[in-house]
Amino acid sequence: MKVIVAPDSFKGCLNAVEVSRAIQEGIKKAYSNAETVILPVADGGEGTLDTLAAATEGKKRRIQVIGPLGNPIEAEYGVLGDGETCVIEMACVSGLSLIPEGELSPLKTTTYGTGQMIKQAIDDGFSSFILALGGSATNDGGAGMLQALGLRILDKHSEDISYGGGELNKIDQIDSSSFDPRIKNCKFTIASDVQNPLIGPQGASAVFGPQKGATPEMVQVLDSNMKHWANQVERVTGLQLDDRPGAGAAGGIGGAFQAFFPSEMKRGIDVVLDHIGMFDALTEADLVITGEGQVDEQTASGKTPMGVAQAAKRKDVPTIVIAGSIGSGIDVLYKFGIVSVTSIVNKPMTLYEAVENAEELLELSAEQVTRSFFYESINREVLS
Amino acid sequence: MKVIVAPDSFKGCLNAVEVSRAIQEGIKKAYSNAETVILPVADGGEGTLDTLAAATEGKKRRIQVIGPLGNPIEAEYGVLGDGETCVIEMACVSGLSLIPEGELSPLKTTTYGTGQMIKQAIDDGFSSFILALGGSATNDGGAGMLQALGLRILDKHSEDISYGGGELNKIDQIDSSSFDPRIKNCKFTIASDVQNPLIGPQGASAVFGPQKGATPEMVQVLDSNMKHWANQVERVTGLQLDDRPGAGAAGGIGGAFQAFFPSEMKRGIDVVLDHIGMFDALTEADLVITGEGQVDEQTASGKTPMGVAQAAKRKDVPTIVIAGSIGSGIDVLYKFGIVSVTSIVNKPMTLYEAVENAEELLELSAEQVTRSFFYESINREVLS
Repeated sequence: MKVIVAPDSFKGCLNAVEVSRAIQEGIKKAYSNAETVILPVADGGEGTLDTLAAATEGKKRRIQVIGPLGNPIEAEYGVLGDGETCVIEMACVSGLSLIPEGELSPLKTTTYGTGQMIKQAIDDGFSSFILALGGSATNDGGAGMLQALGLRILDKHSEDISYGGGELNKIDQIDSSSFDPRIKNCKFTIASDVQNPLIGPQGASAVFGPQKGATPEMVQVLDSNMKHWANQVERVTGLQLDDRPGAGAAGGIGGAFQAFFPSEMKRGIDVVLDHIGMFDALTEADLVITGEGQVDEQTASGKTPMGVAQAAKRKDVPTIVIAGSIGSGIDVLYKFGIVSVTSIVNKPMTLYEAVENAEELLELSAEQVTRSFFYESINREVLS
Repeated sequence: MKVIVAPDSFKGCLNAVEVSRAIQEGIKKAYSNAETVILPVADGGEGTLDTLAAATEGKKRRIQVIGPLGNPIEAEYGVLGDGETCVIEMACVSGLSLIPEGELSPLKTTTYGTGQMIKQAIDDGFSSFILALGGSATNDGGAGMLQALGLRILDKHSEDISYGGGELNKIDQIDSSSFDPRIKNCKFTIASDVQNPLIGPQGASAVFGPQKGATPEMVQVLDSNMKHWANQVERVTGLQLDDRPGAGAAGGIGGAFQAFFPSEMKRGIDVVLDHIGMFDALTEADLVITGEGQVDEQTASGKTPMGVAQAAKRKDVPTIVIAGSIGSGIDVLYKFGIVSVTSIVNKPMTLYEAVENAEELLELSAEQVTRSFFYESINREVLS
């Protein structure tokens, strides 16, 4: 029997590799003859870089860039095991988690560092990119990134505008003559689950601005500025971004990729599954065990266990989900190839206790569910 | 597929019938074509009477007797569905739960009511008895029960001694001439898991006295009195009870049954399984689901899920256990035919929350484990 172990991280608790190893231990205790393949996954948000680097035995490279608040920071990009694909995670360069508590400033945060990182990676010889957009702190339409790559975004005094979505209304013209010419020979895979447009009530500013610290007044300014930015982009590229699905991802950087980069946007989990070799691994697999900290009816809308289950279902392999917490409405998951959902929590306990003992609890629950699922096979092997 | 649902009660939460129904609901949600047979069980302790009466569609009869403290109470005996077997549960007649908080008095508590109940049942025409010994409040060696049935237990003034283990030292002689002659034509099945002797450090007083309220000093008195009682019993019956396994059950009433009654002592769970028709039900069963509030390494020593699993294993039927809480060391259960143990707790929560939502949680966990265990069959039926 072959079991693919493909969980996400349990956020705030264990990373995906640690989760995988604990589940593998449990499977081995239940069924020592089972073949296990560990493929930690991520949904294209935070953790994607580490997960892809670990799963493909790639490496990471640390460079200095401008952080979301405009100050210099150190950040890493990843190189997959193929030696050719560069992974950049916005969360690590221009991300919310880089901003100290109480200093959220969505009018000022910039994607400049993301642009610098792309430039450095091209300098380093890479031309194939995965950009994971989750966890960004920015709402600048990707203007900072484009500036770092040579695009001139000028005000009426022909001065380059400064950082942040609060500056976009000052744009008078865009000069793309110095935009890095190597970009057009690169390939960008944009990992993002966001289908929101750039502008309006479903746009970047209105939907994601608040979680980046925008007050209702700031949202109005940001959305209006973004509209001005979209008009300017249209003048220079001919592309009307306002309503394009995905243009609103990561504070509008999705739109910047659509307008200025040879790029393709894909669901985060699918990008990850493509690159960790999930589809090959699924050949002749008998079961997939995936997992995530919280599983509920929301899981059906594109989170990791769902993507894993859908991939497995295409190869007729059933999936079992191990969760920290199970919420309501999990019935909706069954039709996507999910056999059952089990929680690691095995008695009344606090969240703290569950987190503290997560590895042991994961192992125990994986053992029990393996024993139930493979009862016939285990029994047959014991008897023979 | 045929699934036997045979759980114990979840103590302080749901009785065995309620637990069974919730599990059945979960199975039906997972696998609507599965045949389910509900056989709520009990371990011979508290709840045995209700469980046996319910499982066999028997009835109960309420009578007035002397309670453990010597005051009149109302108590019930059960009649199984066969109309012939009478079930008496000591917990309901001479039990700890009948004593108000703070009034434990192990020197005084009496089994007199148990004897009255036997006498009444014989008057009512019964000759086949199940005596469930769990939960007694007494430490009188069964002297009270025997007195109620006509045995004269006399002090040196030829007066009947009074209630309780504190009186046993006063015995000068036992006169069995008036002992109810019908007893010898009855059959008593004693349901008890206790193998302790009557006297000494492993005896009734030392081991079970404290939970009935005995201080160390009282334990010494009770054990010394019990030794005197054993000597008197030996004089009249020829049977030396001191070290006999099981004589120490329920404050020494186990010894009284051995000395004065045509009786056989059996493990509580086995008595229950015999009478609810478990062995017939297991024929052609594919799975047994049992359960108990707490499952851990102690479960291996004779608790309900263990007895159920052992019975199932004799017919090559696997058993899955659903627990409220899972403790450590459950690996020891596997060799007794237990496939896996799953908890109803599906996220971090308090005991209160688990108890409040126990029915829903039971249903959910039964559903998930059924989906995992019967994955192949369910899938086959969906496809066909």
